[in-house]
Amino acid sequence: MMSKRSATIKDIASELGISPSTVSRALKDHFEISEATKKAVREVAEKLNYQPNSLALSLRYSKSYTLGVIVPEIVHFYFSTIISGIEDVAQSKGYNVIITQSNESLDREKINLQTLFNHRVDGVLLSISKETTSYEHLENFIEKGLPVVLFDRVADDVKSSKVTVDDAMGAYDATTHLIKKGYKRIAHFEGPTGLNITKERFNGYKKALEENKLPFNPELVIKGCYSKTDSRKEVFELIKKKNADAIFAFDDLVALEAVKAAKEYGKNVPIDFGVIGFCNWQFTEMTSPSISTIDQPGFEMGRKAAELLIDQLEVDEDGFTHKSITLPTQLIVRESTRK
Amino acid sequence: MMSKRSATIKDIASELGISPSTVSRALKDHFEISEATKKAVREVAEKLNYQPNSLALSLRYSKSYTLGVIVPEIVHFYFSTIISGIEDVAQSKGYNVIITQSNESLDREKINLQTLFNHRVDGVLLSISKETTSYEHLENFIEKGLPVVLFDRVADDVKSSKVTVDDAMGAYDATTHLIKKGYKRIAHFEGPTGLNITKERFNGYKKALEENKLPFNPELVIKGCYSKTDSRKEVFELIKKKNADAIFAFDDLVALEAVKAAKEYGKNVPIDFGVIGFCNWQFTEMTSPSISTIDQPGFEMGRKAAELLIDQLEVDEDGFTHKSITLPTQLIVRESTRK
Repeated sequence: MMSKRSATIKDIASELGISPSTVSRALKDHFEISEATKKAVREVAEKLNYQPNSLALSLRYSKSYTLGVIVPEIVHFYFSTIISGIEDVAQSKGYNVIITQSNESLDREKINLQTLFNHRVDGVLLSISKETTSYEHLENFIEKGLPVVLFDRVADDVKSSKVTVDDAMGAYDATTHLIKKGYKRIAHFEGPTGLNITKERFNGYKKALEENKLPFNPELVIKGCYSKTDSRKEVFELIKKKNADAIFAFDDLVALEAVKAAKEYGKNVPIDFGVIGFCNWQFTEMTSPSISTIDQPGFEMGRKAAELLIDQLEVDEDGFTHKSITLPTQLIVRESTRK
Repeated sequence: MMSKRSATIKDIASELGISPSTVSRALKDHFEISEATKKAVREVAEKLNYQPNSLALSLRYSKSYTLGVIVPEIVHFYFSTIISGIEDVAQSKGYNVIITQSNESLDREKINLQTLFNHRVDGVLLSISKETTSYEHLENFIEKGLPVVLFDRVADDVKSSKVTVDDAMGAYDATTHLIKKGYKRIAHFEGPTGLNITKERFNGYKKALEENKLPFNPELVIKGCYSKTDSRKEVFELIKKKNADAIFAFDDLVALEAVKAAKEYGKNVPIDFGVIGFCNWQFTEMTSPSISTIDQPGFEMGRKAAELLIDQLEVDEDGFTHKSITLPTQLIVRESTRK
């Protein structure tokens, strides 16, 4: 009686005495594999009655050598930098990169995934929108055989490789820096509710307070002030009613707004009010005062994400396991916290 | 004897008493046209022996409803804004947008065009790289039937619709503003050689000097200092050896560098040295001093470019003529020129 187990890529490899990766590439018509090898592989595959383990895999026999990218907003300096990192690796390995933006909309994220899938990209690199709190759309495309790597804004539940920065550690470093400089009532402007990075940065902030025996005060945590939102009113209230003397902001744009508002209120930044952001946007070193922040290695994140995706594309699926990489952040001290 | 002229879309339209645009859309299987109309159009087209005038047109019968974009650099705030304008119009008309960047490389621009063509975008919106001084690659794809609209950095010789801003007028306004503020020896940091916009801005600068009876001095025109280039040495030399008291910079990044260098040299900006940029990047209002500049309507440029491309896609080719649109710029006066 025949085994119920169907032949695998490894069976073909051992029959031919070559590596599974070579077999996989041969089946995917990879340009690095010789025609002779491709022919031999196809013959053995037929003999052993090899069936690729999904319909989708067979679609990928003809590769487009194009990677798709979905970012929330390309105007965001950080995402532009990540894209440069992605292109750096992709182009060196012969892949082109096409980019779409979700504009922070879940609907648009879905449409972009469908568009990239229709255009037969080999895989997708994605950072989720702030509206994205369920992940069926991602899982559906992954099941259809579209390799996906998540970066920066990731979803724990999705089975894919992931690249993040250590947001909790970055937030911990930012808050600890404020504490060391002598600020006592440190407020936190939180990021979009639902994003992992929002939770992580909050956790890092809270941990720094606790380790330094400062009371955690929920009144000093402000929700809904991030990116382009006007946070002037909230800064005034923090100073006037809640006696805050520093702000750790979810991102640099809010930090800039906080500096402006505190100055407008009559505070001297950094002497009687400290502000630190997150991201290290270009402008943080151009403002007056310049703004302390946490540097995220965007270029490196893009490189790692592209490497993981291309590994997944070029390695036999049996042999590939998803990886999660966390990159370190770096404290950048500028004028806005030099008490 | 039968006329040698073959039937046109207009003939079908007048036979049916509907507009040529409706006929064109029906032949292209556009989703807004009813099945009944499509059927009637196909029947009349057959009766009149209508032949689409190119192979390319027939390829487009099956539309992807995707527009491709090629920009030099998405990290450039201006291009991000243009992309937002493109998406605004495209999405409202049911088109998706995929973006690529040439990174200012002619080779990459060619690869991107090929990639977008391979992925069957319906048309391409393109701003040429600073390396691009011949245009065969564009003309080849246009001949293959790929509709192309150029924006911002355009090429006069290419037969396509174009959207630009009035660079000469913007430069004229910037220089005139410096003159009115009392600056006398106004230098100009030029853009990349070969780009239309470089020539136009230079012309506007020169015209403003002439109209105000100030001598034009070639020594005060500096080439090769734009974008990320370090222009510190050139600024020192302009001040020290050439007695310049103001700079009109090709873009805001150079303007920022010029402000920094002039301050480092010991000049008070704007009291004894004036600086004006071009573009109105976000950061120009954040720096100290804030930087005067020329605002370019990026969002509007993106909108216009997308409208022209979609018009071209949805209108009978017989009825379509390329258009050139020039948008006005606006002088933004900030601290760096408030003598």
